[in-house]
Amino acid sequence: MAKRILIINGPNLNLLGTREPGIYGAQTLADIGQLCADTGTELGLSIDFRQSNHEGELVSWIQDAGKDADAIIINPAAYSHTSVAIHDALKAVGLPTVEVHLSNIHQREAFRHHSYVSAVATGVICGLGAAGYTLALRALAEKL
Amino acid sequence: MAKRILIINGPNLNLLGTREPGIYGAQTLADIGQLCADTGTELGLSIDFRQSNHEGELVSWIQDAGKDADAIIINPAAYSHTSVAIHDALKAVGLPTVEVHLSNIHQREAFRHHSYVSAVATGVICGLGAAGYTLALRALAEKL
Amino acid sequence: MAKRILIINGPNLNLLGTREPGIYGAQTLADIGQLCADTGTELGLSIDFRQSNHEGELVSWIQDAGKDADAIIINPAAYSHTSVAIHDALKAVGLPTVEVHLSNIHQREAFRHHSYVSAVATGVICGLGAAGYTLALRALAEKL
Amino acid sequence: MAKRILIINGPNLNLLGTREPGIYGAQTLADIGQLCADTGTELGLSIDFRQSNHEGELVSWIQDAGKDADAIIINPAAYSHTSVAIHDALKAVGLPTVEVHLSNIHQREAFRHHSYVSAVATGVICGLGAAGYTLALRALAEKL
Amino acid sequence: MAKRILIINGPNLNLLGTREPGIYGAQTLADIGQLCADTGTELGLSIDFRQSNHEGELVSWIQDAGKDADAIIINPAAYSHTSVAIHDALKAVGLPTVEVHLSNIHQREAFRHHSYVSAVATGVICGLGAAGYTLALRALAEKL
Amino acid sequence: MAKRILIINGPNLNLLGTREPGIYGAQTLADIGQLCADTGTELGLSIDFRQSNHEGELVSWIQDAGKDADAIIINPAAYSHTSVAIHDALKAVGLPTVEVHLSNIHQREAFRHHSYVSAVATGVICGLGAAGYTLALRALAEKL
Amino acid sequence: MAKRILIINGPNLNLLGTREPGIYGAQTLADIGQLCADTGTELGLSIDFRQSNHEGELVSWIQDAGKDADAIIINPAAYSHTSVAIHDALKAVGLPTVEVHLSNIHQREAFRHHSYVSAVATGVICGLGAAGYTLALRALAEKL
Amino acid sequence: MAKRILIINGPNLNLLGTREPGIYGAQTLADIGQLCADTGTELGLSIDFRQSNHEGELVSWIQDAGKDADAIIINPAAYSHTSVAIHDALKAVGLPTVEVHLSNIHQREAFRHHSYVSAVATGVICGLGAAGYTLALRALAEKL
Amino acid sequence: MAKRILIINGPNLNLLGTREPGIYGAQTLADIGQLCADTGTELGLSIDFRQSNHEGELVSWIQDAGKDADAIIINPAAYSHTSVAIHDALKAVGLPTVEVHLSNIHQREAFRHHSYVSAVATGVICGLGAAGYTLALRALAEKL
Amino acid sequence: MAKRILIINGPNLNLLGTREPGIYGAQTLADIGQLCADTGTELGLSIDFRQSNHEGELVSWIQDAGKDADAIIINPAAYSHTSVAIHDALKAVGLPTVEVHLSNIHQREAFRHHSYVSAVATGVICGLGAAGYTLALRALAEKL
Amino acid sequence: MAKRILIINGPNLNLLGTREPGIYGAQTLADIGQLCADTGTELGLSIDFRQSNHEGELVSWIQDAGKDADAIIINPAAYSHTSVAIHDALKAVGLPTVEVHLSNIHQREAFRHHSYVSAVATGVICGLGAAGYTLALRALAEKL
Amino acid sequence: MAKRILIINGPNLNLLGTREPGIYGAQTLADIGQLCADTGTELGLSIDFRQSNHEGELVSWIQDAGKDADAIIINPAAYSHTSVAIHDALKAVGLPTVEVHLSNIHQREAFRHHSYVSAVATGVICGLGAAGYTLALRALAEKL
Repeated sequence: MAKRILIINGPNLNLLGTREPGIYGAQTLADIGQLCADTGTELGLSIDFRQSNHEGELVSWIQDAGKDADAIIINPAAYSHTSVAIHDALKAVGLPTVEVHLSNIHQREAFRHHSYVSAVATGVICGLGAAGYTLALRALAEKL
Repeated sequence: MAKRILIINGPNLNLLGTREPGIYGAQTLADIGQLCADTGTELGLSIDFRQSNHEGELVSWIQDAGKDADAIIINPAAYSHTSVAIHDALKAVGLPTVEVHLSNIHQREAFRHHSYVSAVATGVICGLGAAGYTLALRALAEKL
Repeated sequence: MAKRILIINGPNLNLLGTREPGIYGAQTLADIGQLCADTGTELGLSIDFRQSNHEGELVSWIQDAGKDADAIIINPAAYSHTSVAIHDALKAVGLPTVEVHLSNIHQREAFRHHSYVSAVATGVICGLGAAGYTLALRALAEKL
Repeated sequence: MAKRILIINGPNLNLLGTREPGIYGAQTLADIGQLCADTGTELGLSIDFRQSNHEGELVSWIQDAGKDADAIIINPAAYSHTSVAIHDALKAVGLPTVEVHLSNIHQREAFRHHSYVSAVATGVICGLGAAGYTLALRALAEKL
Repeated sequence: MAKRILIINGPNLNLLGTREPGIYGAQTLADIGQLCADTGTELGLSIDFRQSNHEGELVSWIQDAGKDADAIIINPAAYSHTSVAIHDALKAVGLPTVEVHLSNIHQREAFRHHSYVSAVATGVICGLGAAGYTLALRALAEKL
Repeated sequence: MAKRILIINGPNLNLLGTREPGIYGAQTLADIGQLCADTGTELGLSIDFRQSNHEGELVSWIQDAGKDADAIIINPAAYSHTSVAIHDALKAVGLPTVEVHLSNIHQREAFRHHSYVSAVATGVICGLGAAGYTLALRALAEKL
Repeated sequence: MAKRILIINGPNLNLLGTREPGIYGAQTLADIGQLCADTGTELGLSIDFRQSNHEGELVSWIQDAGKDADAIIINPAAYSHTSVAIHDALKAVGLPTVEVHLSNIHQREAFRHHSYVSAVATGVICGLGAAGYTLALRALAEKL
Repeated sequence: MAKRILIINGPNLNLLGTREPGIYGAQTLADIGQLCADTGTELGLSIDFRQSNHEGELVSWIQDAGKDADAIIINPAAYSHTSVAIHDALKAVGLPTVEVHLSNIHQREAFRHHSYVSAVATGVICGLGAAGYTLALRALAEKL
Repeated sequence: MAKRILIINGPNLNLLGTREPGIYGAQTLADIGQLCADTGTELGLSIDFRQSNHEGELVSWIQDAGKDADAIIINPAAYSHTSVAIHDALKAVGLPTVEVHLSNIHQREAFRHHSYVSAVATGVICGLGAAGYTLALRALAEKL
Repeated sequence: MAKRILIINGPNLNLLGTREPGIYGAQTLADIGQLCADTGTELGLSIDFRQSNHEGELVSWIQDAGKDADAIIINPAAYSHTSVAIHDALKAVGLPTVEVHLSNIHQREAFRHHSYVSAVATGVICGLGAAGYTLALRALAEKL
Repeated sequence: MAKRILIINGPNLNLLGTREPGIYGAQTLADIGQLCADTGTELGLSIDFRQSNHEGELVSWIQDAGKDADAIIINPAAYSHTSVAIHDALKAVGLPTVEVHLSNIHQREAFRHHSYVSAVATGVICGLGAAGYTLALRALAEKL
Repeated sequence: MAKRILIINGPNLNLLGTREPGIYGAQTLADIGQLCADTGTELGLSIDFRQSNHEGELVSWIQDAGKDADAIIINPAAYSHTSVAIHDALKAVGLPTVEVHLSNIHQREAFRHHSYVSAVATGVICGLGAAGYTLALRALAEKL
């Protein structure tokens, strides 16, 4: 059976492609979702692609993944820097997890240089735009 | 057509007037909403006045304002000091925004001295009680 | 009439007993709820036991307790360390409050050493596992 | 009798309108003085509008206000960030005081994020340009 | 045979009930000793209750406990914040240990927010007054 | 010939006795000046007692003391905490100097805990009210 | 009846006059004791002059002073910078207290710039050598 | 013509596969070089794969790449955290650059959490082992 | 017409040559003024050489330079480290500016390592004594 | 006559060999005392070997050494990190002093990385177990 | 005989004129070398002008200068901020040394504000471009 | 066969005996090498004694030791405080290692108080001059 990858997108990523293209690129989140679906098909992975502005909902999705997914890709966006709850959820479920950021967070404001998620992720990819998601899929495909 | 102002109130502001009047004054949030409505009528502005305890809901309202409002007044309350998500939402929609605090946050605990919202707001008004909202409306009326 | 105690559990505590038993013990949250109910019966206290992953929902429950509870026991979990909103809600309702942590947070990562809740709680119990809840009930029973 | 408002402007504000209009706007300080005078007339307030580059002179003016003014509006400019003497003078005279900054100091260099004056002012308005002064007058008119 | 609990009180606790009742309550240390003795009887525990102003004596008592006690309750008072020696003694003897503070140390001066003892105690109870001792006894009774 | 002592008072000390008596006592600066004159007569010292709100004037007075005084007593008030210029002036003239504060600065805001003057003064007296000046005179009388 | 002053000297002050005269002067502690006794006679004060290297003994002496002394002069020496226990003892007894240091601690290593005792002392005198003790006696004589 | 990618490996990476496999995996650097060569062939890229323990040599190689390469992949190893010189070299040549770390540096010692290279790299991949190199090649293949 | 250079000297520099020659050298400020005048003649520059102990006066002179000088040389002395007002004045006038310090401020107390002026000066010269002024004149002569 | 070496051991070292052998080794303190005695005999040194849990007693022993010893070896254990009093005693007596730690304190908790004793010791040896004492004896034998 | 000046240039300065002219200017390092040679001829100084990317080589050149040069001019570039080894070498040879930076390092990233070299250089010149080198030569010519 | 000890000396140690004897003593590095050779002969150890100013060369020597030495003595000099690369090399080879410093680094500048090497060394000896090397040899002889 195809391995199932939950791809979780955090707050404001639903605005992608419509705002601040200088930082985040011109693709919409739907475009990235499609790109992930295509890559999933190529790699034989089942993709579940979601977005929420609610920290609590992101926590619940991660908890659910503990029951019905094989790995997680997460772009926690703003919650990267402030959410111990997401950190705890990822640590509790213990799945292979790749953290993805579209922009290179180390070149932005100092408060974006630290991510609570990195401490519990398997690996981190940042600054490579939408390609970060497909590279994460490839990395997980190889691992699973 | 009247310019539309979204006025967003953060967590615990629904308790206004019933608790800690020494810090926040005796007016209820409904009183302040009425005051804003009256001032909006005086200034020819259309007012949409809301409150939520949910960070994610505040983020979504700000995103919506990007589509159907001309400016934002926000009293982020506790989320001022912890929410990068609200910061990102305000930055993404890019509307004229006035941040309002009823109390003078610089005279309270050290963790209230920094607001993530100030870095993306047009201006900030604090310590002037409910008048802060009507002053913010006047400032935006002049700008728009 | 029996004094009413609201017992609030924060994010990821719904996973108790299924994950990281080395840190949090093998009891499920339902087990702890039963333990609290039993202790409540013994002490003549009415117990309302809840859990949420949403910061905003925890804030709303605390606000409601201001109207229909006599004391609060809260295990804010990850939000201990990041939530000014919960701090503000507890301060606003002003009920006797005991903060409980299953693990000894002072022996874990540095970011868990500070709790915004401790500054507004009557007392704090940590590191004593599920017994922390029943000890908190005894402390409140004596106070009320 | 008309309430008397002392409006104090700190160092370099005499250059307004001639330098760095990108940050401070194109109005001269005389323009702002006229705006305040007009608003004072509208609100029935007597306005005394001054500027000095000398910290000691600003201190002395504040001390004098303790004898013959009813409220203070102060734009301490650079001295906001370095003057304990102005802080002490304002605290000693104890008049209602609104601190005004033309620019949003929270978006500039880190050393401008802290103001010694905010800790003793009734309220603070920043980032709203010259309108900050007239809003401060309105706030004080309401208070007095 | 009854389990033996050594209860150790640090500097200035001998003044309890006579000074600063606003912070520490009106009970004397003898009252608390009696309360612990009574609770010990109830729980079938043998109680040894002591106080010293000398860091070195507290260290020696802890070392002795390693030979003839089954658990420790310690209210290190001022030495909580400064004594690595007590930390080392507790770590070396390795007995179940509950740290108790009468007041909620997180609501007092910043230098009281950190305790060297917490890092080596099983659990910590603070802010619950003399009840903290009896709750600690109950927790240890259950553990032993 | 009588030894000459220059007594320098910094900003806002001219308000003494009229404002904030809770912190600074009810004596006016003139009262303290008289007290110093009387003590000077008793000890055979010639006293020159001055006050200024201007940092630059205080610097110039200290420089002048280098030519025509034998020792300095200085209450730098707010400039204690911010003036490197006064520090440099005192260091350059190299006279025996006693720094005096009416209040105990270590019990006030954190920014008052550090004084640039202490690093170049012979000694420091704080928290003893006006008596601090006469004690300083006695200390200098003995030294000279 | 003569007011009783307890004068407490902390660790290593028993070495005075024999070591490091460059920092502490050539007088022995006995010399200073005699000086205090003489000044006590002049001022009609009863003097009790002691020294200990033990923090716990200093704490106990301060506690005793709460019963049989009218004021305290304390030179806590090294314990100034590390002892919360002495801070607590002084706060608990609540007597008028003058902290004395022979040297100007603000000109020595950074770890000597902060004293836990200053936060609970009435006043502080430093850098004036043995005269600091007699000035402290005069200040207390005036206060009592 | 095939795009040329310079792959630079920093100090101690020549030990790969022989030491600390728990952190860095069992592959030798030669294995990774072969993997990169194979992936380069697949992607039509010309690969130049090097290692040095000398900061100065790494700087010179980066400078050379400015003349004869189209992109850089760099695993700066220990120099990530200490080398401003490598930062400057990368900034000066301005080529698309992907920084790769075999381990997740955010889960190791605090001094490994900051990389001077990240501030000038296009993107960063860490924690994905040798796959990090091939993913970097894919990302660059897409960009060039 | 000769280019006009305003040379501004800050507090205590009027004491040069008479005090602390170990740090500042034996030349008086008048000597340096003469040296600058001579060098100005050699380079065809018109020199205006001033000193003040008043921060406000230094600010005003810089403002005036904006109208009638072509460049500024400033030795802000103590105000280097504390004056945002001078920083703002220099930034506002925007003239080519060289900051000069007689001593090497990086070898003195830590509080002298940071200069608010450096952030707005074209260049900085320190540690070269009076030659720093003539080198600054040469640098400006070349630039103008 | 044989040179006399005072070897002082701080708190909890009396537990050596019985507790935490993983960190401190299996030798008892008596074993180390014997080892030092044997090495003393070999080197012609007279050894006085002591242990105390009391900071004050350690201070007094160091003071005594000033009168009747030629050098000191001190393992201050926990007091390394907190005792200014021991620092002052060692500085006052001014004897050649070697600080010894059984474990490598730089590999343990951050609060063990700083020792107040190192600043006044001739040299420091850590991490070499009981051999640290005999190496210290050899170093002193060579120096004396 | 002509005094010999060793001019040392650190990493990446060999790229001058070809990269980032906005920060470093358009001159090549060869141009600056020629400028120095010309100025040396004018001043009667013998110039040895070098560049290396290797910290160790820079250290060795400084050591050699101790034997065959009379003064050093060093632009340590990136190593300014990270090299204790260069600091130690300069301190050991003890020659008159001028540190030069082409750009004003105080206006760049925070990590460039501190230079280990400044603490051992005679003087520092920054922000004046290539003229910094010739000014340094003039300063040394005067000193030697 | 004799155990082989690699003794590695870092930058500037080749200057020993010729420069700064006040800090480092009058012995040359060759003297210390001879001392080590002699001690090696006494202890039956084979000694390889080297020095380099190049961080990369030191790294390579440590790597080589992993193949052909039994233990390492390293005086990393300036690189102690800045080199993660040497830390990594030592950690990778995992040999018994003693870090030696001639001077007591805890009595020098703050930046010398931390050594990256200490975290991976078996033990550390500092402040005992050349004897530190021979003591390290004795410690290793005993261990091997």
